[in-house]
Amino acid sequence: MDPTTPTIELWFDFASNYSYLAVMRIEALADAAGVRVEWKPFLLGPIFRSFGWSDSPFVLQKEKGEYTWKDMARQCAKYGIPWRMPSRFPRLSVLPARVMLAAGDAPWATPFAKRMMLANFRDDREIGEREPNERALLDLGLPAAEILERAGSEAVKSALREQTEVARRRRVFGAPTFFVRGEMYWGNDRLEDALGDARAGRPPR
Amino acid sequence: MDPTTPTIELWFDFASNYSYLAVMRIEALADAAGVRVEWKPFLLGPIFRSFGWSDSPFVLQKEKGEYTWKDMARQCAKYGIPWRMPSRFPRLSVLPARVMLAAGDAPWATPFAKRMMLANFRDDREIGEREPNERALLDLGLPAAEILERAGSEAVKSALREQTEVARRRRVFGAPTFFVRGEMYWGNDRLEDALGDARAGRPPR
Repeated sequence: MDPTTPTIELWFDFASNYSYLAVMRIEALADAAGVRVEWKPFLLGPIFRSFGWSDSPFVLQKEKGEYTWKDMARQCAKYGIPWRMPSRFPRLSVLPARVMLAAGDAPWATPFAKRMMLANFRDDREIGEREPNERALLDLGLPAAEILERAGSEAVKSALREQTEVARRRRVFGAPTFFVRGEMYWGNDRLEDALGDARAGRPPR
Repeated sequence: MDPTTPTIELWFDFASNYSYLAVMRIEALADAAGVRVEWKPFLLGPIFRSFGWSDSPFVLQKEKGEYTWKDMARQCAKYGIPWRMPSRFPRLSVLPARVMLAAGDAPWATPFAKRMMLANFRDDREIGEREPNERALLDLGLPAAEILERAGSEAVKSALREQTEVARRRRVFGAPTFFVRGEMYWGNDRLEDALGDARAGRPPR
């Protein structure tokens, strides 16, 4: 990889509906822009708890929550992305996050992420359980048992805690969040701006 | 006015920075789309208090607040809109909201709204005080004293309370909020989608 290739970091949580939009959209847009994507799975739960929140703001603030599901249906229609309202929200997302960390830079990380997001927001599956993760890995022709064992190792568990702590230290307050040369962009709506600034080599304004 | 002209309602608060973006952008975009704008000034404060919040979420949630001001600088640069971080946020916005209600459908309502938003977010003026409102009205060649007297009448005061109560009943939780045929769109980022749906006569999805 050419070290001068512009890079965008995608910080996301498999439980987050707006992360779903970004995960489904980023690969094609970044390829077209000549920007490399660094995938940064983390957990929103500990971040929200550090703000004194017991749950997602879409659950705690019911007017915003009601709106969010209408917005998701419209946004998915606009982008041509499948959508089914999950019967449980937010879902536990620790296991797929750990599998992503176990994947590291492997080429299957991106298709795995998309499959698990579709499992949550198209197929209404419990992505925190073993079976959907195993299914996604097997469908990608991968040694699922071995990968899931690695995902359950102390090293990977600790890496996810550390990644979430890094997010907190970098003042991440929601997901998806993008970073381009250290500048934060929050929300799927900012993906195009972040990619444009990455490609332009634009300095922080 | 042709009653079949598609319409967008803009619910906004003069204290709200993202409302500033929408107020500055909507006229040109709506004209180009052949959509009529209904201006709906209201007060976010009573809405936030009804959620148990003592202040703007950008004040209460400091990570989000810090980000918001960076985002505003970038968004204003993108849209070619002037920006100066206000030395006080959020400002009292009752008086310009009352003047807007006193304006009704008068053609000076839109230029007045833009001037007061620029007073807050470009000129760092106390828009809740009489002088900037009077200045804006005089600059538009209007009988400022007479309009300000009307803005202070019981009828207008009561109309602003009622407008805010209607916002609350319609589940408005932030600003700007757009309505197109009864469907809610939240945030300056949804202005183009809302206008597109208004023009297309698109039914709720």
